[in-house]
This record gives sequence, C-alpha cells and structure tokens, in this order.
Amino acid sequence: MPSSNLDRLTIVLVSPRNPLNVGAAARAMSNFGFSRLRVVNPYEVAFREARSAVGASSVLHRAEEYASVPEAVADCTLVIGTTAARRRELQHTLRSLPDGAPLIRSRMKSSCVALLFGSEKRGLSNKDFSHCHWLMRIPTREEHGSMNLGQAVAVCLYEIARAAFPTQVKTGLEWATPKRAVKPKPATAAEVEAITNRLFEALTLSGYVKPHSAASTEEKLRRMVRRFSIPASDADVWLGILRQILWKLRSGSS
Amino acid sequence: MPSSNLDRLTIVLVSPRNPLNVGAAARAMSNFGFSRLRVVNPYEVAFREARSAVGASSVLHRAEEYASVPEAVADCTLVIGTTAARRRELQHTLRSLPDGAPLIRSRMKSSCVALLFGSEKRGLSNKDFSHCHWLMRIPTREEHGSMNLGQAVAVCLYEIARAAFPTQVKTGLEWATPKRAVKPKPATAAEVEAITNRLFEALTLSGYVKPHSAASTEEKLRRMVRRFSIPASDADVWLGILRQILWKLRSGSS
Repeated sequence: MPSSNLDRLTIVLVSPRNPLNVGAAARAMSNFGFSRLRVVNPYEVAFREARSAVGASSVLHRAEEYASVPEAVADCTLVIGTTAARRRELQHTLRSLPDGAPLIRSRMKSSCVALLFGSEKRGLSNKDFSHCHWLMRIPTREEHGSMNLGQAVAVCLYEIARAAFPTQVKTGLEWATPKRAVKPKPATAAEVEAITNRLFEALTLSGYVKPHSAASTEEKLRRMVRRFSIPASDADVWLGILRQILWKLRSGSS
Repeated sequence: MPSSNLDRLTIVLVSPRNPLNVGAAARAMSNFGFSRLRVVNPYEVAFREARSAVGASSVLHRAEEYASVPEAVADCTLVIGTTAARRRELQHTLRSLPDGAPLIRSRMKSSCVALLFGSEKRGLSNKDFSHCHWLMRIPTREEHGSMNLGQAVAVCLYEIARAAFPTQVKTGLEWATPKRAVKPKPATAAEVEAITNRLFEALTLSGYVKPHSAASTEEKLRRMVRRFSIPASDADVWLGILRQILWKLRSGSS
C-alpha cells in the first residue's frame, strides 16, 4: 500500500468521553502512519484536554470536529462501523477485522474510507450504524468482547497497515524489515570438533571421564555438542573460553 | 490454536510505572483469552492501584509479582523481548511481529513462552535483553516508533491470537505450520540460566573474566548460551559437567 493511500483512511471517534482515549487513538494513528482524525460531538472538555496534552501528536492538532456522523463521513465512499457486538441483532453485514481489513485496503486504493468508533460506554448507536455500509469487529473472547477504545483503534490500524509490511518497496514508509530473520551461519564441522575435543580434555582433567567408559562418554559428548547449533561467529569465542579453562585446570593440578 | 494453549503465554511487564497501563495490558489479555500476567519490580503504588481499580480483570487479580526477570521467566523455554528500536545496535535477532508471532504460537503448542515489555519510559534494558532468545518489534512508522504500553500489548496479543480466529483470510494461510521433524523439547529458562551461571563461575575462576568488564562479559555469555538450543534432556548433563569442572577448578586453586 503506497504511503499516500494511508491518508485515505479517516478515523472517526463518535462522542468520545475520555481525553486519554482520544490521545491514545491519535498516538496509534501516528505510530502506523495514518493522519486523518475526525471527532463527532465530543465531550468538549475531553477534546480540549487531549489536544493540549503534552506530547499530543500532530494528528491530534489537525483533528477536525463535526457535529454529526454524516458530515464527518461525507467525502468517503465506504463507511465502516466498529462494534463489540457478536449476537446483538444487527441489520448489517458483520465482518471480523482480518476479513474486513483487505476490503478497506482495497477501497483505499481509489477513494476515501471512514472507520467509526463509538463512545467508551455505549459504542455506536443504531443511528450511527445506519450510515455504515457494513460493520466490523475485532475477534475477541466471547465473555469479554469489549475493548478499550485506544487499544481497539491500535489493533484495527495495525491490521489495516499490516499488509503493507511485506511489500516494502511499494511503500514510502520504511516499515520494519519484512525479510525473515537470517539464521546465523553455522560453525564448520572442524570448529565443532575442535570445541568437542577441548571440552573432552577439560572433562578428563576434571575427573568427569572414567577410564572404562571414556570412549562412550566422548561419543555422547560429541552428539550433545552437535545438538547445539553453534553460530560460526561464536566458535572462536567458545574455543577461547575452553582454552582458558584448560589452562587453569592444568596449572592447578601441576 | 486450541484455547488451552493460550495459557502457555506469559506476559511479563518489567518495571511498569503507570497503573493505567498495567490495567490496560490486563484488559487486552482478557479480551484475547490470555491469563498469565507477571510483573517484575513494579512501582508499588501503581501495581496496587491497578489491582484495586474498579473493573480490574481477574487477570490482574491473579497477576504474580517477581523481583527479577530470570525468576519471572524461569518456567519458560522461549523468552522474547519487545522493543521499539530499529537502528539501535542490537546483539539479538530482531523479528517483526508478523514474522515472530508464528514462532511464538508454534512453541506454545508444547511449552511456555514469555513475552517481555519494558517500562513506559525506557523500555527493556540490555540486561533484560540478555535473558531473551530474540527480540520483536511492532512494525511502526520510523518517525514515531514508540507505542503506548497498553496498545503495544493489545496489538501483540491480537497478532498472536489471530490465527486462532475461526475466519481465515488469505494472508492467514501463510501461517500453516509446515510439517517438520519433531524437535526435542527445549530446556527451560531456569535451566539455561543455571548453566549460564556455572559457566560464568568457571570463567571467573579461570581468569577469563576481567573485573572491569565482568558485567558485559556476563551479558555476552548469557546471549551466547541462548543462541544454542539446549534440549531439556541434555540440561542435567551439562549442569553435571560444569559442576565437575567447577569442583576441579576450585580444588586446584586451593
């Protein structure tokens, strides 16, 4: 998803009551690269407090205030309401977040999408829903479905931005490296064998190896060392460590 | 992922300062079906306040308090640290959340995993990192990478629980776990730490550890040991080997 497309998602907070939640929503938007925040009919004090908070993001400073949902979503071609409801009688299609996010991303390629979040206490009303094309819920545990507002915004934006991660070349934003972590280059068999031999010598000097079972102990040790995957970059350090222990074992017994 | 497996993930908050964040972390855990919360060295007032808050979840009531990271992760076989760092010099493998989550889920099939979050201000320390097998970050915008603690916990848990949701999307398919040879059950963090401590003692007795750099040598050693994957079945043997070497080193120098 080109970074410019992220500007095509508008987050609409309907009647938020807690300034901390408004601030948290704005912070998550900034984290994931979204910038359009609109607030409908906020509790005035809360909105003012959130805006003037130390560290309030530029997202918050540029937030727009609207008197009604239809005004806040007027320039969007797709309007999605979020809900914690699972069994509530809904007139709308209900999609889970992993199912809904690709549809949102797809629409963002060509036009603007609004994602609505209701107030902390009551969520979105049926009237708010009536402005929506479909509804979306974050899949949570049935017994505790209602999420904190700031956390719900963060999870939705993470999922919507998520598909941008693997296609780094296409985004203007520099996401974390999509490549799977490269496994470290393993040590060569010769290095592993050198480590095994020094360890065996240390065990012999320590009295761990019994003469009658020395051969089987050595084999067992060799297998055990090979169950590690020793990175090539660590091999020299381990050899040095064993050299030092051997030196001390020898000097102590002489 | 069977819901019973969710009990195998332990969320560890290291030195949290804000009761609202501790509460938010617990709430997200409850939303997504996780129950094991551990808190290391919390700001006491914050922890007490969070626990006694109206609506505090049962997760919070059952949260356990620990004095140190190694104690909090002792029964886990995989320890992951979260970080917002992108360019900071890290000694560890760093995975993005979408890449790391499948590895966490996979380990949760057989044993316990710890996911560490640092304090709001400073995140996890290098010493905390030294107890981790690898590090993970939520892919965020470069200019604003640092997330709110409660939101970061929510996003991580959503992603880890995501594959368990009944409705799968296209992007979810890539997680189908490839069939592989059965890996041996790994040693617990407590066993690995015991091995690390004995090895460090042996190095101190051998003169490998220099007084002025003892702390950094210990951290380096801890990371190196964790780059091995020590099978649970070998842990006792390694402990016995080190015990014997230590005994010899001590008896030689006395």
